[in-house]
Amino acid sequence: MTGVQPTIEGVLGFKVAGAHCGLKADGALDFALIVSDRPCVAGGVFTRNQVKAAPVLLNQAHIQKNPNGIRAVAVNTRCANACTGQQGADNALAMARLVAGRVNCAVEDVLVMSTGVIGTQLPMDKIGLGVELASAALDESRWHDAALGIMTTDTRPKLASVTVQTDDGREYHIAGIAKGSGMIAPNMATMLSVIVTDAALETDQAYLHLRQASDSSFNRIVVDGDMSTNDTVLLLANGASGVSIASAREQAAFLEALTEVSQSLAQRIVRDGEGVTKFITLWITEAPDQESALKIANTIATSPLVKTAFYGGDANWGRIVAAAGRAGVPLQPEQMRLWMASGQGGESPDDRLLLYSEGVPTDYSEEAATGIMRSDDITVWLSCGSGAAAAVIWTCDLSHDYVSINGHYRS
Amino acid sequence: MTGVQPTIEGVLGFKVAGAHCGLKADGALDFALIVSDRPCVAGGVFTRNQVKAAPVLLNQAHIQKNPNGIRAVAVNTRCANACTGQQGADNALAMARLVAGRVNCAVEDVLVMSTGVIGTQLPMDKIGLGVELASAALDESRWHDAALGIMTTDTRPKLASVTVQTDDGREYHIAGIAKGSGMIAPNMATMLSVIVTDAALETDQAYLHLRQASDSSFNRIVVDGDMSTNDTVLLLANGASGVSIASAREQAAFLEALTEVSQSLAQRIVRDGEGVTKFITLWITEAPDQESALKIANTIATSPLVKTAFYGGDANWGRIVAAAGRAGVPLQPEQMRLWMASGQGGESPDDRLLLYSEGVPTDYSEEAATGIMRSDDITVWLSCGSGAAAAVIWTCDLSHDYVSINGHYRS
Repeated sequence: MTGVQPTIEGVLGFKVAGAHCGLKADGALDFALIVSDRPCVAGGVFTRNQVKAAPVLLNQAHIQKNPNGIRAVAVNTRCANACTGQQGADNALAMARLVAGRVNCAVEDVLVMSTGVIGTQLPMDKIGLGVELASAALDESRWHDAALGIMTTDTRPKLASVTVQTDDGREYHIAGIAKGSGMIAPNMATMLSVIVTDAALETDQAYLHLRQASDSSFNRIVVDGDMSTNDTVLLLANGASGVSIASAREQAAFLEALTEVSQSLAQRIVRDGEGVTKFITLWITEAPDQESALKIANTIATSPLVKTAFYGGDANWGRIVAAAGRAGVPLQPEQMRLWMASGQGGESPDDRLLLYSEGVPTDYSEEAATGIMRSDDITVWLSCGSGAAAAVIWTCDLSHDYVSINGHYRS
Repeated sequence: MTGVQPTIEGVLGFKVAGAHCGLKADGALDFALIVSDRPCVAGGVFTRNQVKAAPVLLNQAHIQKNPNGIRAVAVNTRCANACTGQQGADNALAMARLVAGRVNCAVEDVLVMSTGVIGTQLPMDKIGLGVELASAALDESRWHDAALGIMTTDTRPKLASVTVQTDDGREYHIAGIAKGSGMIAPNMATMLSVIVTDAALETDQAYLHLRQASDSSFNRIVVDGDMSTNDTVLLLANGASGVSIASAREQAAFLEALTEVSQSLAQRIVRDGEGVTKFITLWITEAPDQESALKIANTIATSPLVKTAFYGGDANWGRIVAAAGRAGVPLQPEQMRLWMASGQGGESPDDRLLLYSEGVPTDYSEEAATGIMRSDDITVWLSCGSGAAAAVIWTCDLSHDYVSINGHYRS
C-alpha cells in the first residue's frame, strides 16, 4: 500500500464535480456530485442523534432497499434539511430524483447529503441548478472541486487516497473526501464523508468494513462534543479495477487501507476544527476495559476547562485529572500517571514528561511543561494503573475563534 | 418567611471574618472563617468526582465521626489542595488544627475548604496567618467579608438569607455564602457554599434537608459541565435561636426556606459564571420521567453550540433540538415543541414564542425571536410530548471571556 496522499488520482469509474448554485453568498463552490459509471455496493454509517435529517432517513432507506445498485451521491451546503417535516422528506427525494434524471438511473440508486442550518427548507431551485451544473462538469479529475463543494465553516478541503497492490500485482484505489469543522463528536463523528473504491466488495462487506474503520477514525475525534442531525459516512465500491476483495487476507488489507484513509480524513477534520489552534492526541492506557478508556478520553476531550487550558498553553494537568475523575469510571488517583510530549513522538516513556504520579505532581520542570503546552501538536498519556486496555482519540483546543464562529453562524 | 435577602443579618451564635493572608497577589481578601459559639449539627454534600481533594476527605471524616459537634469552617482560596497526596492530607489536618487552637475546640470540630489550582501544596505559613488574622477579626456582622474571602474568579460576593417565623411567633434564620464561577455542573454543583442556621436540627436532619435542597438548586446549575475535585456545600445548625425543627410541618417550612436560600445562591453563581453575559432558564416538560428530563436539560446546557448561539444572540433553536436528540433519551421529533420568552415570564404558553412544533419550525417572526435571544435573561421550554415529567435547570452562555479567563487561569 502507498502512504495516504492528500490528493485523489486514478480511482476508476467515478466522475465527480463541484458547482456553485447560489447557496453560498460569496460565490464559492457549494454543491458536489459523485457518480459511478456502474452500480456500487454501498454502506453507510449514520448519526445516532434521535433527530435525524431527511437525507439521513432517505439514505438509510435507499441503501437498505438497494445495497448493490447505488450510482450517485449529491451533496448540498448551507441547509441541513433537518427538522423540516414531510416537506423536507419530499425535497430530499426530489433532489435524488433530479440527480437520477441526469445520471439516467432509478431514484433509489441515488443518495443525498445536506449540511448547514437546521430548520429551513431546501431551496429547490438552487438545488436544481446545482444538479444541472455539476452534472455538466462531471470528470474523473475534479475531486478537489467536489471536496470544496461540501465545505461549510471548513477552511480547507479534505481529500485522502491510497493505492493498494494485491499479491498478484494488480491494484485498486480507495479515496475519500470529508467536511467537518464544528459539531464533531464521537457516536458518530459529526461530519460528512464520501469514500469510494474501485475494488469490488460483496454485499454487506461495505457496511462491515466502514463500521470498523469509522470506529477507529471518525468516532475517535472530538471538536466540541456535539453530534449533528446529519452525520453520515458513505462507502461506495464499484469494482472498476477488476480486483475483488474476497479472502480473509484481502479483506484485512482492504480494512487497513480504508482505516488509513478514514483516519487521515478524521484527523484533518480536527486540525481544521472551528477556531482550532492545537491538535491533541489523547491516550488513555492501563484502563480496566476499552469502554472505560473511551469514556475517560471523551470526558477529558469535551471538558471546556481542559480545552481552554490547551488554548492558553497552560500546563494545568490538574484539569485533565479532574475531568477523568468525573467520567463515571472507578479510578484510584494514587495509581494514575500523566505524561505529555510535543508532537506525535513520546512512544517510549523516556521521551515524555511525567507530570503526575502516585496521586501527586512530580518534580517536573514548569518550563519544560509550558514548552510542550505551547506547541501546536501535543500528545497526552493518562495511565489509569488499573488494567490493560487502551484507547486513543484526537481532539483540539477551545479558542476565542470557536466562540466567534458559532456565536454568529447563521448570520 | 421573609423573601430571600442578598445580605446576612441577625443570625445568632455565629461569628465570621474574611482576611488577606497573601494568597491573592492583589491584596484582596483570600481567607474566610466561620465560627459557632456552640456545637453545631452538620451536614455536607460533596463532589462525586473520583478525584477528591484533601479537604473533602477530611470533612467527610469529621462529619461522620462528629455530626453534632462542629464548631468552625475555614476556607482558603488560590490552592485546591487536590492531587497532593499524604502531604495534602497532613496540611488539611494542620489547617483544621490551627483553627481548633484559636477556637479552643477539638480538631474534629473543624471543617476546612480549599479552592484554587490543583496539584500544589497549601502554603502553610500563609494559611497560619489567615487563621490568625481571621480569628482576630471574628464578628457577627462580617458576612460580606467572609463572602469576599472565598471568591476566586467570582466578580461579586454571594450572600443570601431568610428569616422564618414559626406558628407560635418565634423566629430563626438561615443564611449562606457561596463561590462558584467556572467548573459548575450538576452532580454536584461545582462550588463551595457554607449555609448556617440558628435553628436546632436533629442529627441527620442537616444532611437530609441539605441533600434535598441541593438537588433542586446547586445540582440544577450548569456553567461549563465540569465538576471539580473540591465541590462542597455545608450546613451548620447551632440552635442559638431556641427554635427546634421537629414536626413534619416545621420540617417542611425549614426545607422550603433552605431551598430558597440555596436556589438564590445557585442562581447567583450562574449569573456570575465566568464570562457569562446571559442567564438561561431551561424547562424540559412532558418528558417520560424526571431522569430523562434532567438528561435532556443537561445535554442542552453543556452543548458548546447551544451556548455560543445564546452568546451571539442567534435564535438557532435547531441546535437545542439537535442537542436534545443526542441526550440518549428516546424522542419523537414530531411530538416536540419549543418556546422562548424574555426574562422569567411566559408562565402561560400565550406569553411565549413558539418556534418549533410537530417536527418543523413554526411561522414565527425572526425579529421577535432575535429580540428574545438578545435579552440577558431568557427562558426556554422544550416539550417532549411524551410524558408528564418536568425539570428546570439554570445555565448560561459561552463567551469570549470564558475562554480568556480559563486559557490563563494559573498565570
